[in-house]
Amino acid sequence: MQIGTVIGNVWATRKEDHLKGLKFLIVQPESPQGSAIDFAYIAVDRIGAGVGDKVMVTRGSAAANMTSDLRLPIDALIIGIVDSIDVERGDDFAKGTRDD
Amino acid sequence: MQIGTVIGNVWATRKEDHLKGLKFLIVQPESPQGSAIDFAYIAVDRIGAGVGDKVMVTRGSAAANMTSDLRLPIDALIIGIVDSIDVERGDDFAKGTRDD
Amino acid sequence: MQIGTVIGNVWATRKEDHLKGLKFLIVQPESPQGSAIDFAYIAVDRIGAGVGDKVMVTRGSAAANMTSDLRLPIDALIIGIVDSIDVERGDDFAKGTRDD
Amino acid sequence: MQIGTVIGNVWATRKEDHLKGLKFLIVQPESPQGSAIDFAYIAVDRIGAGVGDKVMVTRGSAAANMTSDLRLPIDALIIGIVDSIDVERGDDFAKGTRDD
Amino acid sequence: MQIGTVIGNVWATRKEDHLKGLKFLIVQPESPQGSAIDFAYIAVDRIGAGVGDKVMVTRGSAAANMTSDLRLPIDALIIGIVDSIDVERGDDFAKGTRDD
Repeated sequence: MQIGTVIGNVWATRKEDHLKGLKFLIVQPESPQGSAIDFAYIAVDRIGAGVGDKVMVTRGSAAANMTSDLRLPIDALIIGIVDSIDVERGDDFAKGTRDD
Repeated sequence: MQIGTVIGNVWATRKEDHLKGLKFLIVQPESPQGSAIDFAYIAVDRIGAGVGDKVMVTRGSAAANMTSDLRLPIDALIIGIVDSIDVERGDDFAKGTRDD
Repeated sequence: MQIGTVIGNVWATRKEDHLKGLKFLIVQPESPQGSAIDFAYIAVDRIGAGVGDKVMVTRGSAAANMTSDLRLPIDALIIGIVDSIDVERGDDFAKGTRDD
Repeated sequence: MQIGTVIGNVWATRKEDHLKGLKFLIVQPESPQGSAIDFAYIAVDRIGAGVGDKVMVTRGSAAANMTSDLRLPIDALIIGIVDSIDVERGDDFAKGTRDD
Repeated sequence: MQIGTVIGNVWATRKEDHLKGLKFLIVQPESPQGSAIDFAYIAVDRIGAGVGDKVMVTRGSAAANMTSDLRLPIDALIIGIVDSIDVERGDDFAKGTRDD
C-alpha cells in the first residue's frame, strides 16, 4: 500500500455503470518519510477521507476487492486514514543511500 | 485511476475473439494539475468519449471488470468523462517539491 | 493497451504445463506516435501476428483472460493487428510538452 | 517477489471493513545484493516480521491470495522472512553493467 | 513476459502457509537483446531452472495461475527455459533509437 495525502476531488457525471455514487478523491503519493514520490492520481473513498488527510491507498486490481459480489473497474482505493507513521530506521530513498 | 485526454483512435480488424465491436481510443495520461506524465496508450471506451474529452481511466486487470460474465483481455478502460477537477492543495509533482 | 512492433521470436522447450503450443513473440513497445518507449518483452500471439506487424498488446494479468476456463500464467497478449492509428492532437510525450 | 527490510509501522484506526486486526509494516525495497531500489511502502504481515528483518514481499493483487475465501483490498504482503540470499553471479544493477 | 538469467537462490524458513516447498530463485531481468534492464528480483520455479539458465518470467498476479485450485500469493513465476531468441529487427532500447 502507498501513503498519500488527499489534495482534491474529481467529478464525472457520465460514468461506467455501477460507479454511480462513488466518491473520487485526488491523492498525492508520498514516501512514509513524507516526500512526494510521483504524480497525483484518483482513488475511490468509502471511509470518509477528506482534503488534507493522510491515507493508505491500495493500487491495482486489488482495489476492486472492496466489493465481494460485483467487482468494479477501479484501480485505487483508500483503505485507511493514517493515525501515525513510525519509521525506526533508514533514510528516505530520495535523500540518497540508506545508513544501515 | 488516471486522468487523461483522448487524442485519437486505433483500428484493428484482426483481433482476439470477443473484442469485436469495442472502441479503442488513444489517451494521453496527465496529472490532475494538467501536465502530460507519460506516453499515450490505448483504452477501451463504452461511454461515448471522443477526441478532446478529459477522462478517468482504470488501468490494469481491473479494466476487465467492465463485464461480469466473460472477462476480456483488456488493460485500460475509460470509466468517466470528467466534469471538473478541484485541486485544493499541493503543487504539480513535475513542478518540484510540494508546498505543504 | 500498448502499441508495439513484432521484432522476433522466442523458443522454449521446457515450459510450465498448459503453455505447450503457444507462440511467443518479441514486441518492441512504442508510443502511438511511433517512438520506442521501453525495452522489448515477450507476448503470446493467437491471431497470426508476425515480424514487422504493428500490434496492440494487453499487459498484466488481464492477458490471461484469453481463456475463460483455465487461466494461464501469462502477462502479455497480442490482442490485435493494427490497421491504422489516428492521432488528432498532442505531441509525442518524448518530444516535450504537449501543445494544447 | 521483492526483497526488503522492515523499517517501521503504520497505524490507522479508520479503515475499510475486513482490514481490522491486520498488521501494517513499512518496507524499504532492496535488490538481492542489498541496495535500496525505490521508496518505502506499506505491506501486510501475518508471519511475525519486525523492524530490522529482511523479508520477501509479494506486490500487486496476488497479495490478496493470502485469503482464499474473502479477497481483501491489499496490494503488498510479506510472504517470508529471509534466512539467506546467495547471489552466485552478476553485479548489482545499480553498479553498472553485469560482468557475464 | 520478461527474459532474465537466474543468478542465485533465496531461503526463507518462516513463510506464509501454502508456500512451503516452493523454490525461490533470483532473476536478473534482461532485454531480449541481452542487456540488464532493472534490479534483480525473486521468482518461483517449478520446471527445474538453475543458476546461469536464461528464462522467461511471468510477473504480476498472473504468476498465481500456476495453480488452478488454490491461488498462491506469488507475483513472479519462471514459465520457460529459453532455447533461443531470434531478434530479426530493431536495436536494443538501451542503445538509442531504433533503426526501422
